[in-house]
Amino acid sequence: MNTVNSVGLTETKHLTFAAEKPFMLESGASLSPVTLAYETYGTLNAARSNALLICHALSGSAHAAGVDAQGREGWWDDCIGPGKAFDTKRFFVICSNVLGSCYGSSGPTTRDPATGQPYALRFPMVTIGDIVRAQAALLDHLGIETLLSLAGGSMGGMQVLEWATRYPRRVRSAIPLATTARSSPMLIAFSEVGRQAIYADPNWQDGDYYSNGRRPDAGLAVARMIGHITYLSEQSMHHKFGRRLQDRERFGYDFASEFQVESYLRHKGLSFTRRFDANSYLYITKAMDYFDLTRDRGRVDDPLGSLTAVFADSAHIKFLVVSFTSDWLYPSYHSRELVSALTAAGADVTYLDIQSSWGHDAFLLEVDTMTKLLSSFIDRVAREEGV
Amino acid sequence: MNTVNSVGLTETKHLTFAAEKPFMLESGASLSPVTLAYETYGTLNAARSNALLICHALSGSAHAAGVDAQGREGWWDDCIGPGKAFDTKRFFVICSNVLGSCYGSSGPTTRDPATGQPYALRFPMVTIGDIVRAQAALLDHLGIETLLSLAGGSMGGMQVLEWATRYPRRVRSAIPLATTARSSPMLIAFSEVGRQAIYADPNWQDGDYYSNGRRPDAGLAVARMIGHITYLSEQSMHHKFGRRLQDRERFGYDFASEFQVESYLRHKGLSFTRRFDANSYLYITKAMDYFDLTRDRGRVDDPLGSLTAVFADSAHIKFLVVSFTSDWLYPSYHSRELVSALTAAGADVTYLDIQSSWGHDAFLLEVDTMTKLLSSFIDRVAREEGV
Repeated sequence: MNTVNSVGLTETKHLTFAAEKPFMLESGASLSPVTLAYETYGTLNAARSNALLICHALSGSAHAAGVDAQGREGWWDDCIGPGKAFDTKRFFVICSNVLGSCYGSSGPTTRDPATGQPYALRFPMVTIGDIVRAQAALLDHLGIETLLSLAGGSMGGMQVLEWATRYPRRVRSAIPLATTARSSPMLIAFSEVGRQAIYADPNWQDGDYYSNGRRPDAGLAVARMIGHITYLSEQSMHHKFGRRLQDRERFGYDFASEFQVESYLRHKGLSFTRRFDANSYLYITKAMDYFDLTRDRGRVDDPLGSLTAVFADSAHIKFLVVSFTSDWLYPSYHSRELVSALTAAGADVTYLDIQSSWGHDAFLLEVDTMTKLLSSFIDRVAREEGV
Repeated sequence: MNTVNSVGLTETKHLTFAAEKPFMLESGASLSPVTLAYETYGTLNAARSNALLICHALSGSAHAAGVDAQGREGWWDDCIGPGKAFDTKRFFVICSNVLGSCYGSSGPTTRDPATGQPYALRFPMVTIGDIVRAQAALLDHLGIETLLSLAGGSMGGMQVLEWATRYPRRVRSAIPLATTARSSPMLIAFSEVGRQAIYADPNWQDGDYYSNGRRPDAGLAVARMIGHITYLSEQSMHHKFGRRLQDRERFGYDFASEFQVESYLRHKGLSFTRRFDANSYLYITKAMDYFDLTRDRGRVDDPLGSLTAVFADSAHIKFLVVSFTSDWLYPSYHSRELVSALTAAGADVTYLDIQSSWGHDAFLLEVDTMTKLLSSFIDRVAREEGV
């Protein structure tokens, strides 16, 4: 880690709310209390006008920058820190862990106060809308009425779009990266197959695996391996692995890992089981599946018109929309549709379809390009907003 | 079924050979005896010059046309029959099941003569080269020295290419569809995750599940679901499913199948377990992973030159190469590379990149386009070969 540009040692904080009045969820169920894990970097200015919210993807946490007590680097440390794209010398950066996660926020691993046992599948289903409403409660707690900007890729981008439509008055600018206004059937399909791999693991035990030491690691590993393939591109897999063999000169003609790409996936699957919870994987993928900005407002015969109507109150928000040419999980046309709707709604939109071979992961990997792009956009927004 | 154009009731035949002299495999292991299941349609002419070989994909069988005794239609009945693309009034059409399969050819479900028990994982690993060498033995048995043409998609296309390079003198024309000259890391990755889903199923029991009634259906179903996603395209999933719900008006906020695409995948996964063997899935995906025409002949620094050299003795073969614009599992550039190499080698090549939204499955689904294309190509070859 480059300590010069690091926010240094970070600590995850926790906000607990809705202890008395339950937090109502979109499903009709409720949750009480609600805990959100979050980290902040930099200093809130006197006008409380320099706050940026960072939204994480499926397997992320509140630990977005710096290093924690265990020495783990934040997941977007490349872009958050002094002098970086999200410059902590100028801005107050917040990253909040999502509801349903296993990284300190309320989720299936949390103890249900009614029983003293982990909720497991008794945890209520949450949506991107619920996740964002909980984040709004966190901002209230921090005394932040408006966000100068918020940014996120993939599921983080869904939260960005949800914020821009649910709380348009609280948002000055928004940066949805490698994302979509509605989960596609292909996204749902990959999510579902990952979930089926977890359900198929007898150690899953209908979600009640916390007490007896048998965890559905094999199922979760398969789910994660599927995910990893979808985050790469055909081209990046050629660069990264080709048909190279792992630790051998010639084919073994057996069922061990022969190719590097197999070895990589097995390693990624296994290491994920050490840091993530299978039930959280189920809940968070479901939240993504449900995501559809035009739901209840949409007209099947006019998807663009429906999406434009969704942004009717968001015309004052400045948008930076970014997609990546080799991202086949969130193909660029999803972003172009978003840009068309935002433009039709009268918003100020900058759009880039970045040439990259890194697939969906590009939003984290194309650091130089992203740094320049994010910095100049936020500079401009800050200048125009007088921050 | 349109009985007018059908080959009618079909019967799968079996050839057993290598009972005395073992069949040597590329791995160095051997197999004895070897059984191949096959079907034939139409009549071999006196000159024995009108034979076509049809090569099947991962989950296919010898039953390519007509209906079997159980009323099941052949997997490529759209294209094989009287008056169809592979016209059984003019041609003698052969379809051979691959080694490793569970549809009547030697594979892990076959009894090992040494023990009387199914081979399971004691079955030797087979390659596309082994599969094709066994098919050559079948042609010898049928008294066919040369094939007027051979055709196949996906893994069937790999066999077509293997034939064209291993036995160029026995091949007059070749039709590799939606395929590649070497399995890509993305293909290997999806295969491996499917295999991992099978390994993760405790009912798999290291492959020895035939005797105790517990089969790794859950793992095999997950593997098949992954496969089905890769056979479709993002666009075809929008057409086929969109975000439509299955048997419900609104979200259930539970872990049942809510979206049609989930229901489709669960159904496809489940029904596959009723007709396919998990160990065969392991063996056949491995055979595909190993496939690389340039292996041992290839130069890493010159893939096109290596591939051209592979076809040095194939310049007399007429090729029809077909890819599909939305096939992301076997992207068109793989076919274009093949066409470049064949052209450089001096072969007569027709290439079409067919505009289709159906993804990899297009080679089976674009019936009208494929019928016209295959018919006119085979007509021309037959005319030029004087058949």
